[in-house]
Amino acid sequence: MNIVEIVNKKRWKQELTKEEIAYAINGYVEGTVQDYQMSSLLMAICLNGMTDEEVFSLTDVMYHSGEILDLSSIEGIKVDKHSTGGVGDKTTLILGPLVSSLGVNVAKMSGRGLGHTGGTIDKLESIPGFQTTMKLEDFKKQVDDIHFALVGQMGNLVPADKKIYALRDVTATVESIPLIASSIMSKKLASGADKIVLDIKVGEGALVKSVEDARTLASLMVKIGKKMNKEVICVLSNMDQPLGTHIGNVLEVEESIEFLKGNHTEDLYELVMTLGTLMVQMGLQIGEKEAKEKLEQNLQSGKGYQKLEEFVSRQGGDLSKIKSAPKVFSVKSIHSGYINKIHTLELGEIVRAIGAGRYQKEDSIDYGVGIVLSKKVGDFILKDEELLKIYVHEKDMEIGKILNCFEIGIHYEEPKPLIYEIVK
Amino acid sequence: MNIVEIVNKKRWKQELTKEEIAYAINGYVEGTVQDYQMSSLLMAICLNGMTDEEVFSLTDVMYHSGEILDLSSIEGIKVDKHSTGGVGDKTTLILGPLVSSLGVNVAKMSGRGLGHTGGTIDKLESIPGFQTTMKLEDFKKQVDDIHFALVGQMGNLVPADKKIYALRDVTATVESIPLIASSIMSKKLASGADKIVLDIKVGEGALVKSVEDARTLASLMVKIGKKMNKEVICVLSNMDQPLGTHIGNVLEVEESIEFLKGNHTEDLYELVMTLGTLMVQMGLQIGEKEAKEKLEQNLQSGKGYQKLEEFVSRQGGDLSKIKSAPKVFSVKSIHSGYINKIHTLELGEIVRAIGAGRYQKEDSIDYGVGIVLSKKVGDFILKDEELLKIYVHEKDMEIGKILNCFEIGIHYEEPKPLIYEIVK
Repeated sequence: MNIVEIVNKKRWKQELTKEEIAYAINGYVEGTVQDYQMSSLLMAICLNGMTDEEVFSLTDVMYHSGEILDLSSIEGIKVDKHSTGGVGDKTTLILGPLVSSLGVNVAKMSGRGLGHTGGTIDKLESIPGFQTTMKLEDFKKQVDDIHFALVGQMGNLVPADKKIYALRDVTATVESIPLIASSIMSKKLASGADKIVLDIKVGEGALVKSVEDARTLASLMVKIGKKMNKEVICVLSNMDQPLGTHIGNVLEVEESIEFLKGNHTEDLYELVMTLGTLMVQMGLQIGEKEAKEKLEQNLQSGKGYQKLEEFVSRQGGDLSKIKSAPKVFSVKSIHSGYINKIHTLELGEIVRAIGAGRYQKEDSIDYGVGIVLSKKVGDFILKDEELLKIYVHEKDMEIGKILNCFEIGIHYEEPKPLIYEIVK
Repeated sequence: MNIVEIVNKKRWKQELTKEEIAYAINGYVEGTVQDYQMSSLLMAICLNGMTDEEVFSLTDVMYHSGEILDLSSIEGIKVDKHSTGGVGDKTTLILGPLVSSLGVNVAKMSGRGLGHTGGTIDKLESIPGFQTTMKLEDFKKQVDDIHFALVGQMGNLVPADKKIYALRDVTATVESIPLIASSIMSKKLASGADKIVLDIKVGEGALVKSVEDARTLASLMVKIGKKMNKEVICVLSNMDQPLGTHIGNVLEVEESIEFLKGNHTEDLYELVMTLGTLMVQMGLQIGEKEAKEKLEQNLQSGKGYQKLEEFVSRQGGDLSKIKSAPKVFSVKSIHSGYINKIHTLELGEIVRAIGAGRYQKEDSIDYGVGIVLSKKVGDFILKDEELLKIYVHEKDMEIGKILNCFEIGIHYEEPKPLIYEIVK
């Protein structure tokens, strides 16, 4: 076998065998296949696609490229939830405690972000004292004890994905349904969960731009799950505006606390209930209605919030010590009208630029900075009324750039639904 | 500007501006654009194509990426001829002397081959004493004196093409009409000829497999020529069997000598006359009929052969000293019938394997080895009649592999024409 012939086959849109895919992926991890050969193969995959069989092979080869987490000693079903990433998405911080407060095991590994804000691990590290590394034994014991643990990367899971993802990022080969599906699924398979809820973000600000593409991605991941004996359910959710109101690491922890205390925006509530109901159904093997009621109960009774406190303190953190940036500026609208559109990607870039996210892996994050929206899509705003608050250390801000992220019109436009569909 | 955005644009089939193409190509030559980024861009070009404007820009940027040969001090029109490469193609060795014997200036640079046999330079170096390097001044003086000089690479012409070609070879991105067109044309533009005849080989054994693709490539190169004020004419010729009878470096020199002495196979004669007539028309600014007659005259009078001797001795070589390999074996047919097909690529690989060609740039070439066909496509052969002679140093040969290159049938099949069409 020969990597040039393998790339050439995909270039001419022929199906690769599992052996050929293994040769390419394992060779890349071992260094016998070069970066420039892998990137030409990745571009050929982006443009010529992959058959389902090829995606199964790719996922399986990546899944087995490194260590595999063995969580079988934890009693009961382990449920995981994963999002393809959106601006202001703090659902893991809310769902972890809320779902596990019902006795569902959530043994979760999460990553650092290279997005507009940090990833879940960064958000948790914005809580003073919080530890995101622990030994596998301690991790499993914590799940046995309190049903919830959340740590950063543990062990050398799916090294193929790490190396390939880094390459995709610099070769314009990120947007590919087969590559996205196999990347997500190989990691989920290697991290030991039994059942998985995937939140696929759709919209301008997301990896997947159209509902149609999201549906293709979702059904592909469900198929991979079936092939590998893991139940997978995908929720297609709208990412045309930030989720909830808070964007930034500490600010998102704050919004999560408020949520679990009973104060929440409509969209965040709807998404949490949709994803949470599916997680509870899977974890407790009960019907939708019952799962929803149980979730609602633990939200109202404060048990979800108590679980958050228990979880954070078990991992060494102190919620009372979180601190947003000291300077808060109010940004006011210069028009009256309906907010018809928020350019989510651009707004995310502004939040990254003030320090909430990374440009490079080595960058440090300014946990306290960010934005809190006062208005969302569909809201009416008066001239000079507050559009958002911005939390920074220094005053140097280009307000014009922020205002440009909002389209304000005189006619009301019905916002798109938050949940497009559920694929199982 | 940013290379990832440029690759992404091509990935989504958008037209790149000249500035973007220059950013990518010059960045690659300078090392700010990485191999893996260039290879993903090349694969995107292979699969999404390029507009004519993009190809013009790419050619122009490559053309200007290094030194440009200034031959303007040579009096009169300089005509060049280039082939996309085929098995047994020794036309340059014949056309150079024959055309220049009519007073047409042929100031040619040629490369070493990475094909089944060496390139023209390797073939010339198989002549003891022949020098393929000289100073630019001497090169120009030789053309002024005898109308013909042929040397290896001079100066750092089109470094972008060198670097990109090496990458294409190992990333399955060789077969792309825009990339082939810009590679050939940038080199031809930088090497100073005024008018260019391009021989585009078509067939199983060639870079371009179909007449349709060859026609597209041809008209693209003619268009690039018009854009750059160079007259370009393309001949689409058949490469379904080796050209002439001799394959191998010294052997091809021998066939060229015989040709110029009046002994030639039909196909080689037809191609030489077609290409030569065009070169003479361009160089002397005369009509087709007159050009053809002049060529025919100098072939019959031996002036072409005299020019070959003059040229070789001027560059230090001695034709009387060439020597093919000492052991000659006759390979005989095991069937009677018509030769309906020769698997040219496979036969070429056999010739490479016995030492006539290189696998890697650093490999040395065994000048004397090769094959001489006794029969060509369309010929009838008897069982036990000689199919070919093989020239080697040792006896170790797999005859079965050689016989497999020939399809012999009981029905006569009309061979395809040698010249498909001329595009100007």
